[in-house]
Amino acid sequence: MEPGSRGAAPGGVSVSAVLPAGGSGERLGGATPKQFCAVQGRPLVSYAVWAMERISWISDVIVVVSPEKIETMKTIIEKYGHKKVTVVEGGITRHRSIFNGLKVFAENEFSSHLLQRPEVVIIHDAVRPFVDEDIVSKVVMAAKEHGAAGAIRPLVSTVIASAADGCLDHSLERARYRASEMPQAFLFDTIYEAYQQCTDYDLDYGTECLHLVLKYCKTNAKLVEGTADLWKVTYKRDLYAAESIIKDNLSQQVCVITNVKGTLAQVGFLLPESLKSQIKVEAISLSLSKNDSHLQNIISGQCYNFVCVNDKRCAIQEIQELVDMLEKSNIPLLYPVVLISVHLDISENNSFSIGMEDLTMIKKYARETKKKNILFYGLLIQYK
Amino acid sequence: MEPGSRGAAPGGVSVSAVLPAGGSGERLGGATPKQFCAVQGRPLVSYAVWAMERISWISDVIVVVSPEKIETMKTIIEKYGHKKVTVVEGGITRHRSIFNGLKVFAENEFSSHLLQRPEVVIIHDAVRPFVDEDIVSKVVMAAKEHGAAGAIRPLVSTVIASAADGCLDHSLERARYRASEMPQAFLFDTIYEAYQQCTDYDLDYGTECLHLVLKYCKTNAKLVEGTADLWKVTYKRDLYAAESIIKDNLSQQVCVITNVKGTLAQVGFLLPESLKSQIKVEAISLSLSKNDSHLQNIISGQCYNFVCVNDKRCAIQEIQELVDMLEKSNIPLLYPVVLISVHLDISENNSFSIGMEDLTMIKKYARETKKKNILFYGLLIQYK
Repeated sequence: MEPGSRGAAPGGVSVSAVLPAGGSGERLGGATPKQFCAVQGRPLVSYAVWAMERISWISDVIVVVSPEKIETMKTIIEKYGHKKVTVVEGGITRHRSIFNGLKVFAENEFSSHLLQRPEVVIIHDAVRPFVDEDIVSKVVMAAKEHGAAGAIRPLVSTVIASAADGCLDHSLERARYRASEMPQAFLFDTIYEAYQQCTDYDLDYGTECLHLVLKYCKTNAKLVEGTADLWKVTYKRDLYAAESIIKDNLSQQVCVITNVKGTLAQVGFLLPESLKSQIKVEAISLSLSKNDSHLQNIISGQCYNFVCVNDKRCAIQEIQELVDMLEKSNIPLLYPVVLISVHLDISENNSFSIGMEDLTMIKKYARETKKKNILFYGLLIQYK
Repeated sequence: MEPGSRGAAPGGVSVSAVLPAGGSGERLGGATPKQFCAVQGRPLVSYAVWAMERISWISDVIVVVSPEKIETMKTIIEKYGHKKVTVVEGGITRHRSIFNGLKVFAENEFSSHLLQRPEVVIIHDAVRPFVDEDIVSKVVMAAKEHGAAGAIRPLVSTVIASAADGCLDHSLERARYRASEMPQAFLFDTIYEAYQQCTDYDLDYGTECLHLVLKYCKTNAKLVEGTADLWKVTYKRDLYAAESIIKDNLSQQVCVITNVKGTLAQVGFLLPESLKSQIKVEAISLSLSKNDSHLQNIISGQCYNFVCVNDKRCAIQEIQELVDMLEKSNIPLLYPVVLISVHLDISENNSFSIGMEDLTMIKKYARETKKKNILFYGLLIQYK
């Protein structure tokens, strides 16, 4: 689905998202706040934005950053082609930043941006790059029904209460408690009312939106069990982990592009079908064209494996077009892109369809693309 | 300090450690329990054992594994040269495993191993490879004084209590609570009494040793703030993180070996001194010898960078001995070992001390070691 297009939201409600990204990342121990740290060459916040943006039924994504990071954030939006984002200046605490983000839908304070007020608003974190549509959808549905909802996870460590003397007071019974994670979602009017009512103390020292709606709107949030991927990048080790997960995801994702018709189309169909059990497959049935926005979106989603199925003797030209698109895209070509050109041959003629000349051409071009970190392979399938 | 030798324990108490390693690692989502997963080619449990073993004042390290892993664990001990370890068969839960581990010091049930009962026993986890002597020492000291002590960390996420209907009941005030981590330490008699008194329900469903000593011995454990490194490998992402941290540590650690005397010794001394501000330096002043146990221990501690300072024209022979030691050691040579031979020259004679012949020999040998993933460099320092 193309970012910017609007799909049907769960429960038919209008939905937007607010991402507080104003934190200083003290726990990470570096100078750069963690949401701006590069993972595979791309800032973490861009992954989180993209995770929201690719969900067709989310209308707007508000990113709230500290005043000195506004230009940085605008550059990121430009560079990675984010389409649904509005950048808003944050406050000095997380709650003040979220409140500023919500005001964009409700007050003229940010008059140039006043956006359509959604029925449900998602609050997510700029430092949680791995969130899939399924959990976002569940949280939104639950928020529609209960007024508020949030993802939770089992506790990893036992939680204990300390006494004033620094000794153990008591341990919590682990089964009764959960870690509160993101995303959370709220009926817009409910969370906005809570923020309008809450005290300066809440805005400065509170940590939990779920707590605010309970305190000021008597709304008991529905808790939704999330997957392990929802964790928050907090320490340096989490950046390492995020990088490895992104690499893993990239290698388990392939885009199959077919431009074949008739009998061959059936053959071309078999390939993505059989791949599906192994890895995530995105199949496109069309001729490559430089203006193909669907393909461009897949590329900017950082797919690193491409299979082009064709019926021509040698489809170097189409491959060249794809290589051009990859180079012009925002993929930082740090990690090798794999590009396989599959030539389907159903002719009865048994002579080898790829002659020495074609082979030489493929080899030569592969040497050229290798310098760009694009690994190009040719494959001939004779199908009878 | 050589494993097996005994240093002075904090507070002069005798100390041993129990590492429960019987878990199935369900949360990791793989077939291999996480403690046996290889990180840089070495099982996680071996790092945790080594972290305990290298502390000179820890006498014995009891590793408790499930019956089907006893042979695996014995192989690991053999392969990585662990010296202080006794392997014990675990029970079906964590608490039953720890109890079995403690019995080795107190009962004749495991008669062939009955070990000297320590005054303080450390309980650590096989899946926490990064623990340094400082925190272990603090926890042991606190246990001696209070009867029990445990490392704690701030909570990463807000902890919430859910009601029976799956909705939020209340959020905990984050500042009052902590995550209970490892290591923990106890007066042996206290923890052993707690285990002897506790019910089957405790043994089957309890999670926290600190809770047991509070419940059965009225001992309020002292809580000791730990570093971020104490976290537990729980999910697959944690394995990625552990790998990156280990790589990072390896590259920030160097062993400087000098065999020079007199004026040159002063020069040789300057090198480790100036390196100290950048990276962790272990300096050894001696001639390399195949039987040098100090050097062997450093190698089995997986140091990956070596600087050999010598005054000979060409010290290829000594380098060859070090390469032999590296090859025969248990370092899985997956990650390149850097080996720099520094030739110190204080002669007044200005002619280049390393002739073409020596240079050719160094280059040739470097090509040879490169195949073994050992990167060998020669360096000439003329000091006047």
